[in-house]
Order: sequence, then C-alpha cells, then structure tokens
Amino acid sequence: MQTQKQTQKGLTCWLTGLSGSGKTTVSYAVAQELKKFNPDLKIEILDGDEIRENLCRDLGFNKEDRLTNIQRIAFLAGKISKHGVLVLVPVIAPYQEARQKAKELSENFCEVFVKASIHEVSKRDVKGLYKKALAGEIKNFTGISDVYEEPKNPDLVLDTENESLEESVAKLINYFSINGFI
Amino acid sequence: MQTQKQTQKGLTCWLTGLSGSGKTTVSYAVAQELKKFNPDLKIEILDGDEIRENLCRDLGFNKEDRLTNIQRIAFLAGKISKHGVLVLVPVIAPYQEARQKAKELSENFCEVFVKASIHEVSKRDVKGLYKKALAGEIKNFTGISDVYEEPKNPDLVLDTENESLEESVAKLINYFSINGFI
Repeated sequence: MQTQKQTQKGLTCWLTGLSGSGKTTVSYAVAQELKKFNPDLKIEILDGDEIRENLCRDLGFNKEDRLTNIQRIAFLAGKISKHGVLVLVPVIAPYQEARQKAKELSENFCEVFVKASIHEVSKRDVKGLYKKALAGEIKNFTGISDVYEEPKNPDLVLDTENESLEESVAKLINYFSINGFI
Repeated sequence: MQTQKQTQKGLTCWLTGLSGSGKTTVSYAVAQELKKFNPDLKIEILDGDEIRENLCRDLGFNKEDRLTNIQRIAFLAGKISKHGVLVLVPVIAPYQEARQKAKELSENFCEVFVKASIHEVSKRDVKGLYKKALAGEIKNFTGISDVYEEPKNPDLVLDTENESLEESVAKLINYFSINGFI
C-alpha cells in the first residue's frame, strides 16, 4: 500500500467583490505563479460560471437563489479543501451572512475583499454588463440594481483600483505563505 | 514553500445498486479498513442524503431530477478525485446513460454493481421503505415503481446477496490495490 505524507494544509479562499473587480484575474494569476514555484501544489479554482453550469442551472439571481448558489459552492469548496487543496473561489457572494455561513463549511477559510469602486468597475466594464445593467437590461445586477455588502472584517483586502495586478498577486501569495497554506 | 509528492492516484468509485443492497455499508466498511492500514490515505464518501441536503434540495425523484442529481454528484466527485482522493459514491444512479455521463466527469472512474435481488432487498427493508413503496405510499421508488437499469459491463460486481460483507470489502480493496488506487 502506498504511503503519503500530507504536507499541504487545505484552505478555502473566497475572493468577494463586485463584478469586474478582478477576482478571477487575480485567482488565475496567483495559481499560475504558485505553480511556477511548485508544480505539485494542489490548487482548484471554482469558477462561478462553471459552477452555475454544473451545479446551479436551476438558480437565478434573486436573493434566495444567490444564497443557495453560495451555499452549494461553499459545500463544494469545503469538500475539496479538506483534502489538502488550496481552493480559490472568485465569486461575488454579495451577502455578509452568506459568506459567514460559507466559512463554516470549510476547516480553513479566508475572506479576501477584492476592492474596486462601482465607478471604477463600471468604467472597466470588461464584459459590457454594467452598460446593460445601467440601461435596465439586466435585473438584480450587483452594485447597480442589487446590494453588495462589503466585508466588515476581511482577512485581506486587495485594492485593485489602486494597486497593480502584480501587487495584488504578491499580497495574496504572501498571505498564504505566512499562514502556512503553501 | 512546501513540497509535496503525489503518490495517490485519485479515483471516483461509483457503487450503484438498489436501495438496501449495501452500497453505503460497503463504502464505510472499506474506508474504515483502508484507514487502518494507512491513516493518511485520502478518502471521501459522498453520501446520497448529505448531497441531497446540500446540493440538491430542489430536486425530487422523477427522471429529470434524478439525472440532474447524478450529474451534480458526478461533477463534485470529479472535482475531488482529481486531487488524488479515493471518492466512494454509494448512490443508486438507476440509469445506464447517466452513469456513463458521470464517468466522463472523472479522470479515473469505476462502476461497481452492488447486486442484490429486489426480493432480497425487500426482505431486508432496513429503512422500511419497500413496505411503503409496495403500499403505494412512495412514488418513483427504484425497483418497485421506477426503473433500475443494471450495469451492462461493470468493473466489479459485489454480490451482497450471496457473499458476506467481509468478502465484498475484500473484493473492492483488492480491486483498488491491483489497479494502483491505494
């Protein structure tokens, strides 16, 4: 029978922030950077779109559905991170209470606030969604026609409005490193 | 930065069979036995009830809902087993086509048929469900008022009607061992 020494401590790292704040970009950049140093490091990125497609096709964007969506992702993240995987979750998760509940589903959890003002993300508008939301073409759009509750006490803030991607990536990697997750 | 050598090859092992055939019992017994020999072995049991509660509260037991249920569990299993975890899935999964699709969501997959006749499981009736199903109190009950498509070409058959729990456990562990999954 094989033996295996567990050296990686699993973590669910939830990156919360407005659409377009840079959650996904930072996640993939961090994963790429970490893999350079250690190709064996176990990392999973739970991409919001992939999850909606595979676990949440029944859900819309009203509050109840968003809560269920966050809960399912949190359950999945907990099931993966418990096996020593660094799980990055770049998902808006606009409600403080839902993020708190998500925390309870993982042994190790950190909340990272990917911070950019609504002014800034509307200006970026990478996917053209803010234009549509402002025109009333998308309902329940976080930050425009739906609430976003900023984290009150996040474990880390990445101020993507004022810092470069490299700076954000370095800050997050440093957080993982000093807390023993990589 | 920590280093980690991956020595465990992940696998999704789906145990399909009628309610009461012994899927869950075998799964927990196998996990317990494996942990005795190697406490560091990574094992996850995706219990049907826990999954329904956390990922599938919206789903019932008609064919469409069952297919969605199986698909979500398969997605979850794939996400976990890819990180070198032995994932046991004791879930009825009555449709051949759905099991085939489930297979595609994991890098390594095996289908184990936990075989016991409807006569035998009705006699066992551990949860009292067959009595209710036969009385018409439960609709869409697999084997009574709903279809169960037996695996045509399973990787392993555990004949729990004619072999002891110890024999079934030993057969499954042997399968994992000769195929390099433990």
